[in-house]
Amino acid sequence: MWPHYVMGTGEFSIIKRYFTRPNQRKDVICGVGDDAAVLKLPEGNQLLVSTDTLVSGVHFLPDIEPGDLAYKAVAVNLSDLAAMGAEPAWMTLAITLPEADEEWLEAFSASLFEICQYYGLALVGGDTTRGPLSLTITMHGQAPAGRILYRAGARVGDWLFVTGTLGDSAAGLMCLQDELQLPSPLRRPLVNKHLRPRPKMLAGRALRNLASSCLDLSDGLATDLSHILTASGVGAVVELDQIPISASLKSVVEPEQALQLALAGGEDYELLFTVPEAQKGALATAMSEAGTSYHCIGQITNGSGIQFRREGEPVELTLSGYNHFKDAV
Amino acid sequence: MWPHYVMGTGEFSIIKRYFTRPNQRKDVICGVGDDAAVLKLPEGNQLLVSTDTLVSGVHFLPDIEPGDLAYKAVAVNLSDLAAMGAEPAWMTLAITLPEADEEWLEAFSASLFEICQYYGLALVGGDTTRGPLSLTITMHGQAPAGRILYRAGARVGDWLFVTGTLGDSAAGLMCLQDELQLPSPLRRPLVNKHLRPRPKMLAGRALRNLASSCLDLSDGLATDLSHILTASGVGAVVELDQIPISASLKSVVEPEQALQLALAGGEDYELLFTVPEAQKGALATAMSEAGTSYHCIGQITNGSGIQFRREGEPVELTLSGYNHFKDAV
Repeated sequence: MWPHYVMGTGEFSIIKRYFTRPNQRKDVICGVGDDAAVLKLPEGNQLLVSTDTLVSGVHFLPDIEPGDLAYKAVAVNLSDLAAMGAEPAWMTLAITLPEADEEWLEAFSASLFEICQYYGLALVGGDTTRGPLSLTITMHGQAPAGRILYRAGARVGDWLFVTGTLGDSAAGLMCLQDELQLPSPLRRPLVNKHLRPRPKMLAGRALRNLASSCLDLSDGLATDLSHILTASGVGAVVELDQIPISASLKSVVEPEQALQLALAGGEDYELLFTVPEAQKGALATAMSEAGTSYHCIGQITNGSGIQFRREGEPVELTLSGYNHFKDAV
Repeated sequence: MWPHYVMGTGEFSIIKRYFTRPNQRKDVICGVGDDAAVLKLPEGNQLLVSTDTLVSGVHFLPDIEPGDLAYKAVAVNLSDLAAMGAEPAWMTLAITLPEADEEWLEAFSASLFEICQYYGLALVGGDTTRGPLSLTITMHGQAPAGRILYRAGARVGDWLFVTGTLGDSAAGLMCLQDELQLPSPLRRPLVNKHLRPRPKMLAGRALRNLASSCLDLSDGLATDLSHILTASGVGAVVELDQIPISASLKSVVEPEQALQLALAGGEDYELLFTVPEAQKGALATAMSEAGTSYHCIGQITNGSGIQFRREGEPVELTLSGYNHFKDAV
């Protein structure tokens, strides 16, 4: 471990005070407080690990509420597990802070443990250092061997689906950046989708035996779909009329802008997945049990790349490659 | 996963170009490139996880060579595994860079993969973001259940040991900061101990059946020993005459300063451990097989805290609490 001479008020006291809670999982043999956490993986399960760094002004607005930041940092990492069909288990948090602001830390840690508790996640390791605000979460999940969802695996003829609706989060960010001025009742659901995305854990698990490929939408449908296509060596047709757009979004922007946000806005944290024809019936049952809405938006084809269609006709589409923080950084 | 719109040259190309190599471990089912890595833990083993963030100007000098930074970042995390008696398996790297400097990345990644290969470690996940230089490594190891070394476990009467020699790394840092001016042959071994500490992997494994407690020395003997004592609910006597100090260190500073550096300099990355009387013979054999030098420096006692002794007599010692970067930050 790196030496601990870095925080004014002492790293040990910060970890102890804000980031240590009684351990709630029986598979945590040793949590925070030794050189490493010691964890027990159930037999027959494989370990899933994903890591993400979030830098102030790059990945989140500098004035974000600490509670929203903690929630979202955990949620987007959980979303990666959902996309693999895995269950949450343990996480580590490395946080760099310009100063030890008690009020900030209090709100951050309360929200962090709230979402951890909700998803049955244990915080098993941490590091606090002094510097410009950023955090790195490493998320650990479990899934039965052989039942994990990958990006590669989409086959020609498979149907293409998304959960939920797309574009709300990007519109929510526009509200936060004052690029979109709305009255509070219209603004709230969009901002909420941006700040408090709900990782699709149940849907991911329900897809374990059904989907031929799966990922979570972070960069926007167009970019993320291309990852599935490249990994699987296939192409896709996407029916623009079928892209699910919420009533909230439809009511505040023009249809073309709504579509741009849905295709390239990013940060939806919905699942994008493919299902063979033979599994379509089972899919309906599974998603209904998971309580997740979903839409068929196209089909996997030979070749490569995405062909967009509108009313059955091919269309050329210029995506604006919407860059969230173009002004902020 | 957080959206990837942050690096000028594209995060994907940086990860692909600098941080992806053919996977060399059979237990990596899926490495970099999906939403999460998928890993297989051998049956009967437990998982060890440790995380560390290193910030430029706080944990390392801003002008550090990229090769030295990569080496040390991995080495200090391996040292945590060594202290638990675990074997290295997988790591994730989250790196934040002010710019995509090709020469820097080339040197950094070459050194990173060199040390990974040497210790049989697979890089299974990563994130690159733009911002002030810092890195967070999350290290994963394996060890048979029930044979893991903890900080708690030292008993009254156990003998206290350290591997190697202490204080060289802190003197090396003084050289790098021009607080100590030495001719090159005297300077080199000290600087080398600071920049390229060797994690005591074999020693850690050899201690699995022998040590009653163990940790690695990052903050200096005095601070780190107190962690063992607190966790175990005991005290200790430390014989100052027995503290191992290298010939290199002795030849460049006064004995009192050498002792200060050995007790409070930090970043030694040697193992500090306790062994019951009955295991002293077995210890000699095990450490000889591991090829690791070690010294007995004291004994565990009733009570709490550390009592320093010199020639058998108690002494009061004021440790200077040497702060590496006191001028740098």
